[in-house]
Amino acid sequence: MQKYVYMFTEGNATMRELLGGKGANLSEMINLGLPVPGGFTVTTEACTRYYEDGEEIASEIKEEIRDSVALLEKETGKTFGDPANPLLVSVRSGARASMPGMMDTVLNLGLNDEVVDGLTELFDNRRFALDSYRRFIMMFSDVVMEIDKANFEKVFDAAKEAKGIELDTDLTAEDLEKIVAEYKVIYKEQAGEDFPTDPFEQLILSVTAVFRSWNNDRAIYYRRMNNIPAEWGTAVNVQEMVYGNMDDTCGTGVAFTRDPATGENILYGEYLMNAQGEDVVAGVRTPEPISHLEDQSKELYDQFEEIGEILEKHYGDMQDLEFTIERGKLFILQTRSGKRTAQAALRIAVEMVEEGLVSKEKALMTIDPTQLNTLLHPQFDQEKLAAAEPIAKGLPASPGAATGAIVFTAQHASQEAEKGKSVILVRDETSAEDIEGMHAAEGILTVRGGMTSHAAVVARGMGTCCVAGCGAVSIDEEAGTMTIAGVTYKEGEQISLDGSTGFVYAGKIDTVKAEITDHMKTIMDWVDEIRVLKVRTNADSAEDSQTAIDLGAEGIGLTRTEHMFFAADRILPFRRMIVADTEEERRAALDQILPVQQADFEGIFEVMVGKPVTIRLLDPPLHEFLPTEDEEIEELANDLGISVADLKVKMHSLEEINPMLGHRGCRLAISYPEIAEMQTAAIIGAALAKTTDAEPIVPEIMIPLVGDVKEFEFLQEVIRKTADKLIAESGKELEYHVGTMIEIPRAALTSGKIALEADFFSYGTNDLTQMSYGLSRDDAGKILDTYIHRGIYDSDPTAHLDIEGVGRLMTMSSTEGRKAKPEISLGICGEHGGDPGAVEFCHSLNFDYVSCSPYRVPIAKLAAAQAQIKNPR
Amino acid sequence: MQKYVYMFTEGNATMRELLGGKGANLSEMINLGLPVPGGFTVTTEACTRYYEDGEEIASEIKEEIRDSVALLEKETGKTFGDPANPLLVSVRSGARASMPGMMDTVLNLGLNDEVVDGLTELFDNRRFALDSYRRFIMMFSDVVMEIDKANFEKVFDAAKEAKGIELDTDLTAEDLEKIVAEYKVIYKEQAGEDFPTDPFEQLILSVTAVFRSWNNDRAIYYRRMNNIPAEWGTAVNVQEMVYGNMDDTCGTGVAFTRDPATGENILYGEYLMNAQGEDVVAGVRTPEPISHLEDQSKELYDQFEEIGEILEKHYGDMQDLEFTIERGKLFILQTRSGKRTAQAALRIAVEMVEEGLVSKEKALMTIDPTQLNTLLHPQFDQEKLAAAEPIAKGLPASPGAATGAIVFTAQHASQEAEKGKSVILVRDETSAEDIEGMHAAEGILTVRGGMTSHAAVVARGMGTCCVAGCGAVSIDEEAGTMTIAGVTYKEGEQISLDGSTGFVYAGKIDTVKAEITDHMKTIMDWVDEIRVLKVRTNADSAEDSQTAIDLGAEGIGLTRTEHMFFAADRILPFRRMIVADTEEERRAALDQILPVQQADFEGIFEVMVGKPVTIRLLDPPLHEFLPTEDEEIEELANDLGISVADLKVKMHSLEEINPMLGHRGCRLAISYPEIAEMQTAAIIGAALAKTTDAEPIVPEIMIPLVGDVKEFEFLQEVIRKTADKLIAESGKELEYHVGTMIEIPRAALTSGKIALEADFFSYGTNDLTQMSYGLSRDDAGKILDTYIHRGIYDSDPTAHLDIEGVGRLMTMSSTEGRKAKPEISLGICGEHGGDPGAVEFCHSLNFDYVSCSPYRVPIAKLAAAQAQIKNPR
Repeated sequence: MQKYVYMFTEGNATMRELLGGKGANLSEMINLGLPVPGGFTVTTEACTRYYEDGEEIASEIKEEIRDSVALLEKETGKTFGDPANPLLVSVRSGARASMPGMMDTVLNLGLNDEVVDGLTELFDNRRFALDSYRRFIMMFSDVVMEIDKANFEKVFDAAKEAKGIELDTDLTAEDLEKIVAEYKVIYKEQAGEDFPTDPFEQLILSVTAVFRSWNNDRAIYYRRMNNIPAEWGTAVNVQEMVYGNMDDTCGTGVAFTRDPATGENILYGEYLMNAQGEDVVAGVRTPEPISHLEDQSKELYDQFEEIGEILEKHYGDMQDLEFTIERGKLFILQTRSGKRTAQAALRIAVEMVEEGLVSKEKALMTIDPTQLNTLLHPQFDQEKLAAAEPIAKGLPASPGAATGAIVFTAQHASQEAEKGKSVILVRDETSAEDIEGMHAAEGILTVRGGMTSHAAVVARGMGTCCVAGCGAVSIDEEAGTMTIAGVTYKEGEQISLDGSTGFVYAGKIDTVKAEITDHMKTIMDWVDEIRVLKVRTNADSAEDSQTAIDLGAEGIGLTRTEHMFFAADRILPFRRMIVADTEEERRAALDQILPVQQADFEGIFEVMVGKPVTIRLLDPPLHEFLPTEDEEIEELANDLGISVADLKVKMHSLEEINPMLGHRGCRLAISYPEIAEMQTAAIIGAALAKTTDAEPIVPEIMIPLVGDVKEFEFLQEVIRKTADKLIAESGKELEYHVGTMIEIPRAALTSGKIALEADFFSYGTNDLTQMSYGLSRDDAGKILDTYIHRGIYDSDPTAHLDIEGVGRLMTMSSTEGRKAKPEISLGICGEHGGDPGAVEFCHSLNFDYVSCSPYRVPIAKLAAAQAQIKNPR
Repeated sequence: MQKYVYMFTEGNATMRELLGGKGANLSEMINLGLPVPGGFTVTTEACTRYYEDGEEIASEIKEEIRDSVALLEKETGKTFGDPANPLLVSVRSGARASMPGMMDTVLNLGLNDEVVDGLTELFDNRRFALDSYRRFIMMFSDVVMEIDKANFEKVFDAAKEAKGIELDTDLTAEDLEKIVAEYKVIYKEQAGEDFPTDPFEQLILSVTAVFRSWNNDRAIYYRRMNNIPAEWGTAVNVQEMVYGNMDDTCGTGVAFTRDPATGENILYGEYLMNAQGEDVVAGVRTPEPISHLEDQSKELYDQFEEIGEILEKHYGDMQDLEFTIERGKLFILQTRSGKRTAQAALRIAVEMVEEGLVSKEKALMTIDPTQLNTLLHPQFDQEKLAAAEPIAKGLPASPGAATGAIVFTAQHASQEAEKGKSVILVRDETSAEDIEGMHAAEGILTVRGGMTSHAAVVARGMGTCCVAGCGAVSIDEEAGTMTIAGVTYKEGEQISLDGSTGFVYAGKIDTVKAEITDHMKTIMDWVDEIRVLKVRTNADSAEDSQTAIDLGAEGIGLTRTEHMFFAADRILPFRRMIVADTEEERRAALDQILPVQQADFEGIFEVMVGKPVTIRLLDPPLHEFLPTEDEEIEELANDLGISVADLKVKMHSLEEINPMLGHRGCRLAISYPEIAEMQTAAIIGAALAKTTDAEPIVPEIMIPLVGDVKEFEFLQEVIRKTADKLIAESGKELEYHVGTMIEIPRAALTSGKIALEADFFSYGTNDLTQMSYGLSRDDAGKILDTYIHRGIYDSDPTAHLDIEGVGRLMTMSSTEGRKAKPEISLGICGEHGGDPGAVEFCHSLNFDYVSCSPYRVPIAKLAAAQAQIKNPR
């Protein structure tokens, strides 16, 4: 029979898939002899089973849970529901991947009126017993019964206000007695029944709630953002309670073995005395820095530091610990790899290698490639910044610079961001409900909460700039204003945040490119030593090319030749070309375009000298370039010497029902070979102008949207005829390649044939994904929302490569292409080229390179090194 | 070394791919000892090589041709260019598949001034020598040098007019002398050089011209229509001339071994004395029926009849022969399987089996499945026809009935047909240039030409109704009128043609369904005995279902549930459903739709009792159903009680950039599961109402546009929940299946997984083709024209299944689907389901059935039988 529940003593760190990260690490710490309260884990398979069984926990699993409770009772000597020596437990979710703030927790489970009385007696502390009880009722009501927390908070805040106190800890046992009584009334009103008194019933309801919460909207959204499959499910950890809320000899805290913002090798964290876990991260009370603990109890601090060192060495990575002090005794409640800023990740990796703790390879594996984004994003222009006066200072919770319009709600942030506006989300504090809005914002400013508050943790994970706990700010959400030092700022006004210093500025401050730090350089040197997959960039101009080179690009995998034409001084001849009625008219327009295009290519070749440059022939449907405003249409008609009506007829004739599946890509040049001739002339002309014997330029001409080898053959002939003539006329030597995008399913299905003709394949996974799924990215928004909501897709396939379907086409195509022509060059140039999962996949297919946007180059390089470490070629 | 030229004595009928049909059959006839002039064949591989070499004949091939000429000189005792005993040859194309009228021919090659003198002397007949010369100059100029024939015809016609004669044969040697002189002047003017006098030069230029003509527009168009690959290339046959144009003891003709219109077992054909081959088929002079030859020379007639019998028996099929009589001696110049009407094809097949000449299997292989179309198309309503007075009578050249507006040019026919109008193309005579227009026309009426004229042959091949040689008609193309017996009919006026009787009628005559003949029944009985692949139909109504049953359908493979809603009385609730803002509103609209939909399904189940019926859930994008006219929009807004502006906002929100890749198919029901619930309720409700113990109904519910197994799982649960509840409530037993279309590449790529969940797969090759090619059928028109023109596509992949690419997906999918679930049912329901090539492919993949439109059912059945004969399962 399948086993659905494991005692902590039965598990270990390798059982992450089954026990979840939290459960596996609790077991591992027990194996290491660390002070961890006992307990057991209900497995992720139980969660999967729960959904298979129509959202019910099977009776056999319930029995296993009951048996495990009995074992825990034996282990602790305490008994569930026994007032004389009650076993209380925490119930916490723990998925395979860390999902902070997403899943729900219940503490102090096992309490009822009788047990509260027993607890009072046992510890001679009624206040503590009642404080635990009110927490339990509220958490249970919120998480299990979905009763709005606000109901309870209102009561609690009213009690504090009535007494004129600020701190929860100032409430007396009598106060809490009344609060508990009121809580029970609220529960009955809302749930329609009395608060459950049977601890086992409480437990089963709580486990169910954790399983259920795996599919709440926030969890689904988080999974979508982080590409976590819905199948994984979550485990549930049931652990003996230890109490940080008995009195001032108790406390609770969170700490990192290194500074998660900078990576500095110091113990870093916060704690609160007389508190339970949620108080620290909720940001309601501002906690003490962990260094203060040393003053308070050197022994405890030293013990904690030692445990941190043991765990860091054991796991070979910086750890994030939760701990509780119960009457002077330290307990570790959780350890996991600590989330960190990209900057910290690099420093930690470099220093841990220097400290001899880990190998380069192991160190590189601790860095999340996508996180490098943060380091690559612009910072404030230092001159502009020097001129700016900060209006407030908060905690530097997540580094980076952000500038944008003030918004006060997450929803509003999403709305404005959808319109393409940059916004700064300003909140008293954030909660899981705000995640979408936080994701949409350029930066986040909170009034309350510390470095480990919800806002800070989430923003660091997202790589979004965040200034937290900025108490100088006071928000009037209703009026749509905030006030700082008497000055009022309205919603929509510009402010700027520096997430690395904590300063807040009024107005917009220009940003500049990120600088590459020494740690980054060291890491990138290691990356370059290890990886075998080359990384090119997608760049359409000399400027983009330079940015990419600075970021380590090894060539260009995709230059789009159409983006150049949107410039005001170029669009007119291009439009003339589009609406030409005859080949003659078209050639006349193309003649005007040729020198402009050639000049662009010359600029790119200059920057990319000695490196491969792939240039794609004109790709988008021509009507995309036509004017839409009446004024522009009139202008174009005048220029062409035809009537607006005639022009509109012409424009109408170019309209398509499904432009994505219409007259575009190589189809354009097959209809009008003179376009391919002009573009070839521009590419070859530019290469001839810039090539030297010392550093020869080898342009790669790429034909888009090929679905049949004959399309390729037809255009290759046009291209080679034009190119060879120009080269012969120049008297120079020039090597060039002609290859194709593989972006149509049929091209992937017939790659063996196409490879015989083509010098290279570049996988255009944007289109390949859209056509394989029959789903247009332009129209997919609402559909994907529904699909992810219903658990049909785990992630957006246009953002994360679908290995199963699209990847299968790539596997077939690359295998058959290489078989037909072993020397064929293989690369990828879709958006997925910078997606670590796709990079790993391309590595496994023995691709020569991936190509991505300039800022993604370091990410792709790191991912390529990690792929080589995991799966050496 | 590869051999590019074969003497006729070296070949045989099995070498069709290499020698082309004509060459292989000439060789075969020589092997049979029949009277065939000697010669040789330049192979199809030489043609392919010609294109590979950049449209040049390689010198090694020229050498082989020269060697073969020498062999032919030896064989005939005649010498190229020798005035004393000159060898003259014909040069004719001969592809693997017969392409009548498409390729070009040069006769009398080898003539020059000296040879003409020699020929005159040899036969003591200057008229004949000059007649041959003028023909040669004109054909060579036209075919090889692309000089417009009209230049020569003008001279020729002027000469006849000057002498007041009608027949070419009335021109004297002196007349011809002048004509030849003028022809040579025209040649020099147009070609810029003298007419070439070297016979070998003439020959190489002619062979080149034949190769070149393989890629002329007409050939490409013909290949497109007939799905012939461009790779095949054409062979060239060089054959000793025999002369039908010496005097009245000479002649030339064409004949079929059976009547190609009716299939009757009589020798059928036409001949002209004192003429060369082109005169008969060109329709310039009206030839004699072959029966008259018996009166003229019983011996020759008997010999010819005997040869016909030998060849028919030898090939096991009705033959189409070309012959020439040279001074009383019979020569056979060509034999091939004769083109025939569908009606004739059936009769010939049945009678040849009855005569013991061939087996049923062999007989079935002689019928082109697509040709059955003719028999299945409507005929005139006999009552209406009885009331109609014919205005003229021509030859019944191609059977069937047609009614439409008069047009006088092929181009106009194409234009009007594109607008959806039915047209009758009226011409003096047709030529290869008219093919597109002929294809577009419902019927063809010609003034000149016989049963084997261009118009007649081509129309029969196309299955288009044709009345030929209707001399009563006189056309004034400039005025846009025709006159019959003093009555003038304008372009655009309606006329009707009966291709089976030759009668022409003024006005429109209603047509009725075709009746199934006894021959058809016999053939279909044999087909049903032999084939293993089932044939279902695509039908959306009880009426269509009945038509399909009458035509032999074995069930329904696809009922589209949306077509039902375009009816005026149903569209309103459907639109209400579409624009509903809430689930509640949507459910209210769906409740109105349910009984209507259920009633439709009941009608279909009644007709299809005992047969499988597959019903597809709602598929098209919802905005397709919304009104476009302002009036209708207002009406809908009124009905919904909202403003027109609000409705337009709603409608706008449903618009998509690429609707084909947007919110449609299963995505609709995943967004709004209540739609799937309603449709399931309607299907199951109808099945429960109509099922009986004796003839149980087993509905098959089909989910469209699935790309991931989870989409299927989600909807299967919705469907089964609804269905099981209804069945349980009814107290009846009902089996039903839930399956999916495979129409998205990703579905084909992940079929192993989907098969575990689905009861059946139905390949939606329309969408699968469009997505595999990245080409929308709606936008493909101009693109396909260009592609076919440039030789990139051989045929329209939306009309003929692309076995290489789309077929590969089908192969992967069906193999992996069957592996995962051996009992899964496999079928096809795209337009390709009635395409014989696709049917054969589905047979080879062990599909259970194909499904096609009702009129295509017999075609698919015959194709299925032929597939089984070729490749028995």
